Amino acid sequence: MFEYSLIAQDGNARAGVLSTPHGLIKTPIFMPVGTQATVKSLTPSQLKEIGVQILLANTYHLYLRPGSDLINNIGGLHQFMHWDKPILTDSGGFQVFSLSDLRKVDTDGVTFRSHLDGSTHRFTPESAIAIQESLGADIIMAFDECADSENRSYIKKAMDRTHRWAERCLKAKTRNDQALFGIVQGGIYPDLRQQSAKFITSFDLPGYAIGGLSVGESKQDMLKTLEIVNAHLPHHKPRYLMGVGTPYDLIEGIRRGVDMFDCVLPTRLARHHAAMTRKGRLNLANATFSKDKRPIDDSCSCYACRNFSRAYIRHLINTKEMLAATLLSIHNITTLLSISQDLRSHIINQDFESYAAMMLKDLEEERKG
Amino acid sequence: MFEYSLIAQDGNARAGVLSTPHGLIKTPIFMPVGTQATVKSLTPSQLKEIGVQILLANTYHLYLRPGSDLINNIGGLHQFMHWDKPILTDSGGFQVFSLSDLRKVDTDGVTFRSHLDGSTHRFTPESAIAIQESLGADIIMAFDECADSENRSYIKKAMDRTHRWAERCLKAKTRNDQALFGIVQGGIYPDLRQQSAKFITSFDLPGYAIGGLSVGESKQDMLKTLEIVNAHLPHHKPRYLMGVGTPYDLIEGIRRGVDMFDCVLPTRLARHHAAMTRKGRLNLANATFSKDKRPIDDSCSCYACRNFSRAYIRHLINTKEMLAATLLSIHNITTLLSISQDLRSHIINQDFESYAAMMLKDLEEERKG
Repeated sequence: MFEYSLIAQDGNARAGVLSTPHGLIKTPIFMPVGTQATVKSLTPSQLKEIGVQILLANTYHLYLRPGSDLINNIGGLHQFMHWDKPILTDSGGFQVFSLSDLRKVDTDGVTFRSHLDGSTHRFTPESAIAIQESLGADIIMAFDECADSENRSYIKKAMDRTHRWAERCLKAKTRNDQALFGIVQGGIYPDLRQQSAKFITSFDLPGYAIGGLSVGESKQDMLKTLEIVNAHLPHHKPRYLMGVGTPYDLIEGIRRGVDMFDCVLPTRLARHHAAMTRKGRLNLANATFSKDKRPIDDSCSCYACRNFSRAYIRHLINTKEMLAATLLSIHNITTLLSISQDLRSHIINQDFESYAAMMLKDLEEERKG
Repeated sequence: MFEYSLIAQDGNARAGVLSTPHGLIKTPIFMPVGTQATVKSLTPSQLKEIGVQILLANTYHLYLRPGSDLINNIGGLHQFMHWDKPILTDSGGFQVFSLSDLRKVDTDGVTFRSHLDGSTHRFTPESAIAIQESLGADIIMAFDECADSENRSYIKKAMDRTHRWAERCLKAKTRNDQALFGIVQGGIYPDLRQQSAKFITSFDLPGYAIGGLSVGESKQDMLKTLEIVNAHLPHHKPRYLMGVGTPYDLIEGIRRGVDMFDCVLPTRLARHHAAMTRKGRLNLANATFSKDKRPIDDSCSCYACRNFSRAYIRHLINTKEMLAATLLSIHNITTLLSISQDLRSHIINQDFESYAAMMLKDLEEERKG
């Protein structure tokens, strides 16, 4: 049910197809985030028009509001949010560990207080799986401990816990129409990452994720770690780099063999008036755009770029109109999807490196200019 | 270019077709308001899917931001906001007179201070027309004084000024691809309304509006005034009741011969979590809807009602997600458009009265229940 076909490889970059109960996913792919069962400011119909193939929803948020039982009673997450294509849910681990002062970890799980009302809750590997089964996404994630520290002994402890929890997640799982992805941890320590990759891939899972990156380490450390982990991941399974989603990171990640990405960045930047382009970011709140008749990005064919000027979008921002966030979200998600689709074609055409180098140069020039 | 064909009449209710440079408008019709060149939270593509035939934009707001010259340079309002169907602009009069403390009227025009930055500006009949010509809507409005007072002598004064200004607007007008509608004033005084209707219709204009209603007077006074004014308006011209848009007012207005309506209500209520239905309003923030699998309104066929439960919309409201306003705006505008379309069919079928009575009964029962 969750077959992954590697259809082309160029260097380490991979083009594939992952099948799920709600359809195929052509990888490499960017997955927009619908934290609260909605990709902020967009309808499912707009997401389809953009060409979104799979989206992500957050277990922690949906568990608290409206509750996973409620979503299950409505018919599951697909029905609830009217999205009939694939969905991936995270395990809630990342959010819970981000609560820092509000959570306490033990061998068995994590006790935490809701960021909403301070009420006490507990996640264990078993409950994280039960909640995700109740939500009913196509791909669910093992409950892991994401250590955003550079302290090696803590990172090792968190990694070991992640390993034991992965085993318990696998045992707890009851639905066979959901793919459980394991998560490799180990910070930026090569030996820990190797150890974690070996341990997690000792379970024959339909996919593997790389967690604990893009949490404050240097870009160089992130890319080096990616190389180490990917060298230990099996070729016939998809690889998902969690929480990463700038054009630069997409290109460098795909170059190192990553197949799937997610990030809140395109919609968050949109709400803060920034457009992502292949040549860097534009802040459309800037008065320099007030008379600019050009589209956000003349190389883009999204609904926003086909039909509206920078001047109009700048006016929407200036007058605090909601449509600004909608149009910029459409554009930003389109940018990330089109980058991953273009790179996919060039992997298939076996000219990935030169195309990726050109894209990186465009991004670099904008940074300098 | 602005031919109005009255195709059916049942009692005083009228069904017609108004032609404009950007297409036909089937009346009676509700016009959503895009105050700042955007109908809040909706894309033009969503407005088309809803079936919107014409929308309204506000001269006062667009004059201040981004400026009518800027819009003109971009190619006019249609191009600026990517709306290729008819647009109507108001004259700015209503907004300027609403500024109360910030404006000063004289024989020639109004001096006012911007609600945004306190800067001083001046509207005259001539400048209101020049701005509207610069924006380029299909239908433009005469610059009038809307007196929201019950003081007869002030209302008479404002009416006389409105009459002189109408004459000046007509003289100032230079474009012949725009229809100038005159505005009847006179408060709730039958003799003043008669006098105003006679005076304004002495100019052969392509349409006439009824201003100064729904500004605090009783429902009874509003409907009586409508009857008086409509009795003096020519049959072969469209009649526009300004700023009115509840289901009840639509039905009672159409019953008395009104052809066009506009109101911010459907989008404003949407942002405040309320759904307009043919049986009254629902506040979807209410916890009673949290597990409700039904659509907002099971008699409605809009995108929101076809695809989403009340539980989902309540969740979006509860988590402050922008999609709530979008879905409720789609629904509310659809409700008003479908009411006007249904009533149109029943005018053509010559069974308007019984159908309107049934609709009014449904609204009444909800109010009592």
